[in-house]
Amino acid sequence: MLGVVLTSGGMDSCVTVAIAAQECELAMLHISYGQRTEKRELKAFNDIADFYGCRRRLTTSIAHLAQIGGSSLTDNSIEISQADLESKEIPTSYVPFRNSHLLSIATSWAEVIHAERIYIGAVAEDGSGYPDCRPEFYQAFNKVIELGTRPETRIKIFTPVIDMRKCEIVLKGAELGAPLHLSWSCYKNEDAACGLCDSCALRLRGFKEAGLKDPINYANSI
Amino acid sequence: MLGVVLTSGGMDSCVTVAIAAQECELAMLHISYGQRTEKRELKAFNDIADFYGCRRRLTTSIAHLAQIGGSSLTDNSIEISQADLESKEIPTSYVPFRNSHLLSIATSWAEVIHAERIYIGAVAEDGSGYPDCRPEFYQAFNKVIELGTRPETRIKIFTPVIDMRKCEIVLKGAELGAPLHLSWSCYKNEDAACGLCDSCALRLRGFKEAGLKDPINYANSI
Repeated sequence: MLGVVLTSGGMDSCVTVAIAAQECELAMLHISYGQRTEKRELKAFNDIADFYGCRRRLTTSIAHLAQIGGSSLTDNSIEISQADLESKEIPTSYVPFRNSHLLSIATSWAEVIHAERIYIGAVAEDGSGYPDCRPEFYQAFNKVIELGTRPETRIKIFTPVIDMRKCEIVLKGAELGAPLHLSWSCYKNEDAACGLCDSCALRLRGFKEAGLKDPINYANSI
Repeated sequence: MLGVVLTSGGMDSCVTVAIAAQECELAMLHISYGQRTEKRELKAFNDIADFYGCRRRLTTSIAHLAQIGGSSLTDNSIEISQADLESKEIPTSYVPFRNSHLLSIATSWAEVIHAERIYIGAVAEDGSGYPDCRPEFYQAFNKVIELGTRPETRIKIFTPVIDMRKCEIVLKGAELGAPLHLSWSCYKNEDAACGLCDSCALRLRGFKEAGLKDPINYANSI
């Protein structure tokens, strides 16, 4: 069975690839959308795909999320906020409805290559606060896939890390030998991770709570 | 109230714009996706937007549907089939899961500009046969929008022509003074419409049943 894995190149998607690799033949999909660190994330994607010997890859780039703006990830006039992991607000890094775009691309590709699964490393808990990372969103999207594709098409979304805390993701990655040293999570920098943005803060807290050392380099630490 | 109207430039979207213009301030959205007639459709979009004096426009282009292929509209190795309006098969012009991509872009834009409606000129009946043109698909997508956007965001999809036959769309367009002479429906040609593809055949039958003459030029007629 073939599974399309949405792979940003971050830690969560890296561990999701490791999980999918145990269950499916991998078809890895990376989508740049004008986010600040898109080159570094693409490198992480290719490094992880090389690590797993995955030859079935699709990389694509969409311009419209940056055209539309509304997020600190795609609009340079909005500053990347420093992490506040206790806040209940949706962070400035929320890209409006982004995961629907990613899933649409994954579904079209899956339908054409006859993949039956789409894996996405969304995480609901642990402070992300994005509405399109909740389990209900993926349940609803499964219905859209069922209704919007050919009658014979069978595609389901899998979110294997959605209920995990970041430290559990780190431990699962370690258990499966996921190449976390190749992954990239920072929203701000492309050389050494900033250590200060939401994504770095969540990752660092995850490693700390897991009692493991993050193998990537940081410019700052918190 | 602001309404985003997905406007391909075809007849159905042209009439959808005319309907939306009575209910909302228009924000017109056009998406090229590597289909054969994308230049001609973009011209039709701009002509229709000019006709309505709409200044809030977003045009974007997505490469991935052509990269993914699987449709005669985006893959030159698959021939555009001649119309068979009685067939129950999904036509070769089906672009896998296309409308989910269009709605995702419309939703992100609507969320950022605070539009409350998305209009799309999908038609369920009358022979299109596309799974992503059925009312259930749009109901399911409304649920995805509700769950995948900010809690304060209120966006609903409107499909005002979905239950109309093509001749009813022609008559509605005539009633509202929609600029059908500026619209473009042909899947194959960019100069004079072919008159033979599914889209031309449906349009021509619609005008014929409505007892009206189609104001655009055809290279052939059926």
